[in-house]
Amino acid sequence: MSNYHVPFSAPIRLPAEQAPLVCVDIGGTKVAVSVVDARGLRSRVSEPTATEGANHVLAQQVLRLIDQACAFADIAPTEVAAVGVATCGPFVLRQGLIELVAPNICGGLAGQARGLPNDWTSAVLEAPLRAAFAQVRVENDGIAALEAERRWGALQGCSDCAYVTWSTGIGMGLCVDGRLLRGRNGNAGHAGHTLVCDDSSALCGCGQRGDVEALVAGNAIARRFAAQGYADAAQLFSAAVAGDATAAAIVDSLCAVLGRALFNLSATLDLQRIAIGGSVFWHHRDYLLPRLRAALAGRLPPLTQGLDIVAAGLGERVGDFAALALVLP
Amino acid sequence: MSNYHVPFSAPIRLPAEQAPLVCVDIGGTKVAVSVVDARGLRSRVSEPTATEGANHVLAQQVLRLIDQACAFADIAPTEVAAVGVATCGPFVLRQGLIELVAPNICGGLAGQARGLPNDWTSAVLEAPLRAAFAQVRVENDGIAALEAERRWGALQGCSDCAYVTWSTGIGMGLCVDGRLLRGRNGNAGHAGHTLVCDDSSALCGCGQRGDVEALVAGNAIARRFAAQGYADAAQLFSAAVAGDATAAAIVDSLCAVLGRALFNLSATLDLQRIAIGGSVFWHHRDYLLPRLRAALAGRLPPLTQGLDIVAAGLGERVGDFAALALVLP
Repeated sequence: MSNYHVPFSAPIRLPAEQAPLVCVDIGGTKVAVSVVDARGLRSRVSEPTATEGANHVLAQQVLRLIDQACAFADIAPTEVAAVGVATCGPFVLRQGLIELVAPNICGGLAGQARGLPNDWTSAVLEAPLRAAFAQVRVENDGIAALEAERRWGALQGCSDCAYVTWSTGIGMGLCVDGRLLRGRNGNAGHAGHTLVCDDSSALCGCGQRGDVEALVAGNAIARRFAAQGYADAAQLFSAAVAGDATAAAIVDSLCAVLGRALFNLSATLDLQRIAIGGSVFWHHRDYLLPRLRAALAGRLPPLTQGLDIVAAGLGERVGDFAALALVLP
Repeated sequence: MSNYHVPFSAPIRLPAEQAPLVCVDIGGTKVAVSVVDARGLRSRVSEPTATEGANHVLAQQVLRLIDQACAFADIAPTEVAAVGVATCGPFVLRQGLIELVAPNICGGLAGQARGLPNDWTSAVLEAPLRAAFAQVRVENDGIAALEAERRWGALQGCSDCAYVTWSTGIGMGLCVDGRLLRGRNGNAGHAGHTLVCDDSSALCGCGQRGDVEALVAGNAIARRFAAQGYADAAQLFSAAVAGDATAAAIVDSLCAVLGRALFNLSATLDLQRIAIGGSVFWHHRDYLLPRLRAALAGRLPPLTQGLDIVAAGLGERVGDFAALALVLP
């Protein structure tokens, strides 16, 4: 377990009387919990995501980490005003409460293929949190990041916009007519799993072949192009930037695929701005942005003219602010 | 010009005191205007869509048809409570008011390719209507049809749903979290122009090659398969139903393409139900529905399990009710 205090140099002004808020980030690799109040970030703890045992161990881990983060912050859990949870999905609702059906957490979804040490078909989450805290808000991490970008980042003042993370996977948060889209089970924004071309050579964690995530996500790049000498996305993109023609052609093809997904999003939702973040994108954003924009150029002008495609305003820290955006008044 | 009175045998109960409402349907081929009040449908007039002259002739035509329809109904235009306009798009906003940039109306968009007798880059619409009537609501015809299906058709009670028209073109209306999606310029739902596969053999009216509409819309089917002996969609589908293996294979491929678009819609928006209407679909819906559903089967289960794909509840009459749904209180 790691815990550390970091300066809260956010573009955020916290109310002077802000009661403690708990921010929970659940990913396939780690769970991070932080406590924020009027004085800023008070504590932060994280652990590898619990996936061994019964399907409520993840929620137990979250509750334990909240207790620890509160203890480090010298705050009683009863003082917590609200708990915001930004988590990987998708979700199912059981009696109206969110459980996770995330392929990176639930071993029962994709058989033994993912090597997970459990056979869960879902992971309990919202019910135990609501039993412990009065105010709880659980959202897909794409939706939470969208909220953060709308409040403090590149999507401020935008009524029709999307946040897209190009990272280990491809996630999205969507906002139309000034309202974020949740959908039937809070799963709106899973457009990383849409089908935009015929290339079915790559398998996605969701079980489909050839969806956008299977073709361009960070983990896909590592799998698809290692044989050509590019161990991961960073290596591939660096080679392209350095003038490697093979790498450049691959990157162009990746941008064409993700660009088609961005075009589809704009044709479907009539957006004003799309902000892109995520670890795969961020370090090579200057190289990638014009290539993504080119994939939309000239297509269906009433839907793409005046559409901005920009880098996330919160940069690499979108994730830090995502859960906070869910609960900060 | 045709005008006729038809019985208003709609699944609609009009308020006993309902003041006259004007319903306008604008398509690439014809403009229809009807007047409805407490007694039902009072009059209906239609003409071929005006496309010769300056770019305000369409709006002038609409205003003239409204006058005629009111005269037939023996109602003064000043008695009209509201004007609802369901129209083909896309839209641009000029000083906040809708103008049409529809490829089937504006000859200046696609060059001479469409054979239109004008060089308009947009057609004025909302401004002259608002100058003449106090209450005006203009929406994309997909959005209007969605409203009608939500009020009287197969989407009643659905908070997360879409209406898809499979007709001369492919149009959609979208609703998420109980609110219909309009987007930056009211163009949300143009997912008929999304890219879902690599087939770029067909040209769309929007200028793109290989979008969904270019591949499966009614006018596309006529162009693509005439050489194989299928003059139009009706002939192709009838042949498939009758056991023609070539026709059946073509129809399967069309359903696979449209099915991918429906899957993309559900992955993006987390929908509960999709209702399909439109002239191309309607007469062969029993043959087409299972093939469309099959295209989604097993994909990303949390987003597709429990998703209904059904025929439009208002059947071939969706269009008749679309504009009315925009203005009936």
